[in-house]
Amino acid sequence: MLQELLAPEIRKQIENKNYTTLKDTISGWEPIVIADLLLKLPAEDQPVLFRLLAREKAADVFAYLPAEEQEQLLTNLANTHLRTLLEELDPDDRTRLFEELPAEITQKLMALLSPEELREARKLLGYPGDSIGRLMTPDYIAIHPDWTISKSLEYIRKYGRDAETVNVIYIVDEKGKLIDDLRLRTLILSDTDQKVSSVMDNHFVSLSAYDDQEKGVRLMQDYDRVALPVTDSAGTLIGIVTVDDILDVLEEETTEDIHKLGGLEAIDTPYLSTPFPLLVKKRARWLVFLFLGEMLTATAMGYFQTEIARAVVLALFIPLIISSGGNSGSQAATLIIRAMAVGEITLHDWWRVMRREIFSGLSLGAILGVIGFLRIFIWQQLFHLYGVHWVLVGTTVTFTLLGVVMWGTLSGSMLPFILRRFGLDPATSSAPFVATLVDVTGLVIYFSIAALLLSGTLL
Amino acid sequence: MLQELLAPEIRKQIENKNYTTLKDTISGWEPIVIADLLLKLPAEDQPVLFRLLAREKAADVFAYLPAEEQEQLLTNLANTHLRTLLEELDPDDRTRLFEELPAEITQKLMALLSPEELREARKLLGYPGDSIGRLMTPDYIAIHPDWTISKSLEYIRKYGRDAETVNVIYIVDEKGKLIDDLRLRTLILSDTDQKVSSVMDNHFVSLSAYDDQEKGVRLMQDYDRVALPVTDSAGTLIGIVTVDDILDVLEEETTEDIHKLGGLEAIDTPYLSTPFPLLVKKRARWLVFLFLGEMLTATAMGYFQTEIARAVVLALFIPLIISSGGNSGSQAATLIIRAMAVGEITLHDWWRVMRREIFSGLSLGAILGVIGFLRIFIWQQLFHLYGVHWVLVGTTVTFTLLGVVMWGTLSGSMLPFILRRFGLDPATSSAPFVATLVDVTGLVIYFSIAALLLSGTLL
Repeated sequence: MLQELLAPEIRKQIENKNYTTLKDTISGWEPIVIADLLLKLPAEDQPVLFRLLAREKAADVFAYLPAEEQEQLLTNLANTHLRTLLEELDPDDRTRLFEELPAEITQKLMALLSPEELREARKLLGYPGDSIGRLMTPDYIAIHPDWTISKSLEYIRKYGRDAETVNVIYIVDEKGKLIDDLRLRTLILSDTDQKVSSVMDNHFVSLSAYDDQEKGVRLMQDYDRVALPVTDSAGTLIGIVTVDDILDVLEEETTEDIHKLGGLEAIDTPYLSTPFPLLVKKRARWLVFLFLGEMLTATAMGYFQTEIARAVVLALFIPLIISSGGNSGSQAATLIIRAMAVGEITLHDWWRVMRREIFSGLSLGAILGVIGFLRIFIWQQLFHLYGVHWVLVGTTVTFTLLGVVMWGTLSGSMLPFILRRFGLDPATSSAPFVATLVDVTGLVIYFSIAALLLSGTLL
Repeated sequence: MLQELLAPEIRKQIENKNYTTLKDTISGWEPIVIADLLLKLPAEDQPVLFRLLAREKAADVFAYLPAEEQEQLLTNLANTHLRTLLEELDPDDRTRLFEELPAEITQKLMALLSPEELREARKLLGYPGDSIGRLMTPDYIAIHPDWTISKSLEYIRKYGRDAETVNVIYIVDEKGKLIDDLRLRTLILSDTDQKVSSVMDNHFVSLSAYDDQEKGVRLMQDYDRVALPVTDSAGTLIGIVTVDDILDVLEEETTEDIHKLGGLEAIDTPYLSTPFPLLVKKRARWLVFLFLGEMLTATAMGYFQTEIARAVVLALFIPLIISSGGNSGSQAATLIIRAMAVGEITLHDWWRVMRREIFSGLSLGAILGVIGFLRIFIWQQLFHLYGVHWVLVGTTVTFTLLGVVMWGTLSGSMLPFILRRFGLDPATSSAPFVATLVDVTGLVIYFSIAALLLSGTLL
């Protein structure tokens, strides 16, 4: 037979990792041919060939396999060999070569695995790293609209004990497509002879396996649910996600955000178990980047070298001024980034935010400006530190503070919008990043105002 | 009767808010006397007097009231009058005057209210602001150990539809004390003639109403639960908390942490709906505090005024140096604060953290030091900016960077430990706070190293 001859050839292709060629070759073949071929392959190669099939064809091929072989294939799909293979591949290649599994197989695969195995094996399903698909479990109850309530209750009593939740029951049509969800109490309150369809309202909340995990968090909060159904791209119910899993994810994502806000790359392992070289690497990259940016301050200061030589008193306030800009910028960035992360602010709000932040910046700048002037006034009275032109110096510092805090607030609040607008993570506009940005401009503002107010006297 | 005479006096005391005197006065009276007196008071004064009773006595007084009056009192306990009164009081006074309600009354009170009313009314129960008591709901199923399984199942079928969860059933003794929890599946799998006690393992996870809400988050994650039972200080089951409520809390607390990390006071309203004055106030306080701290840099710089005048080239690198210290400190603080918040690090780990951070600081400082030297070398070759002693200037900057980054890393990582050790919130050691702290010391390190290396040449 043809398959006898083909099998060694296929094995060689798999061994040499010619997945693209192999995918192209088998794409023209009939499902029954592939099913026969599959049976001729050694156990470890079967899942590889199967995973290269397009979604629809994979379902057909699976249907042709004898029951025993189906189970064998599922076990092989879940084994370490295929997992290692998938992990070796570049994520782009993985997505291109290996499609979403047919819903039926996803369900069977998930049901086959223990909770511990499931954790690892969900990677095999082909859903992206931070998608809902990576969190779902198969422990839900699904019933059909043409069942009677009493048959449904019987079913729930029988299978409910393995389900993660029986408070909500899912209704699927004959193809497994999710068409409604019902609270258990609705079923209990209804006449047991009625059909399920008579109490349905065809209104439900569900997630796609491709949805971002953040969307799961959002929906559960908005609809006060402890579990939500997950459908594949065809709308077939393939699992549920429960809030405890979402909770873990939320915590991880928040940690990432906080790390970025603190000016380092996100570290996803606990602090004490992160290998030392990784710990340094994740911090060094940003620190060096910020250092390179901050070098511009040395350049800017170079331009004002003569002014500093002539009026050393100006140098005294440099750290005070640039840190005020940095602090106000870091406050604004933190506020806006967090408001974006929890969905309080969207891109459309930029103008409302800008208007508020202009006034915030002015108010905060005025407060610091006045305090700054007072400090110079009092110290001058006490220690006569700032020379005869101390009023002019004080005025320069006051106006600079107003300008720098205003500019810091504005940059800090608008940078997250700009980053998000270009599809980047707003959390990247961390406190240290905004501070660095504001430092350079702060110096320019300071020496420009000084040149304006002090020329003819100190400068 | 005595009560007829006393009632007007009590009313006056309530009107004048002499709660302390009143509490002392009634503490000596018999429960039956107080019960009679209560009936003589107008509806709005009843709950005030009642809430001033000690826990045990309150339970006794309640028992003496006729059924109708009991219900009346419960309604009054939940009304706005008492709520306003409690909110007016200083939290310390509130805790001192108004004890925890008896469990029986807590349960009845919660059962009486709609979910919306409950949100507000939980404040009345007397549990602190961020405690589990503020999140609990009364919708759970509790059964007794001497019931048979079939009686229990009957009960669950009857009352289960109002419960937030029926997956876990709680077992209480005749006094309402929580003694076990059981999964529904355990009941279903057991012989229906058995007693509940025969399937109990007396092993359960529960929260106290006084526990911090963070503890709820932690326990739900560790034990993979979507709901946990809550007991009062006597161990009586008074409610459950569900994970969706915990999720909201977690989000709020994280927002608080992030705000603090960004160097502002926590704001608990959404950004766009926070009144402008509040928005400015919450930022101004920290900004002014940091500004006052940062003023020390002007003082420090004042001491080095002569050095700056003699070698202006030193001034050029001030922003670069202090920002590097600030950035490394902010990274370290962020890492440690987050690791503490998610429970990865406790106070006992301080030495392990310190050891790691010394080496991190050295590595990061060395990296920046080398880059700093290269920058001065290259710019000198290209623009001859730094004079004949550029090698010495470069060496000064390099060693300063090493010292400042090391110091920033160490302060940033140890400050959260110190704050927590003294019972303060580690998140207060925000990026801007650490930066300010490091700025002043950074200047001292810089000019000390300069004095050491440049005396005789530039200085």
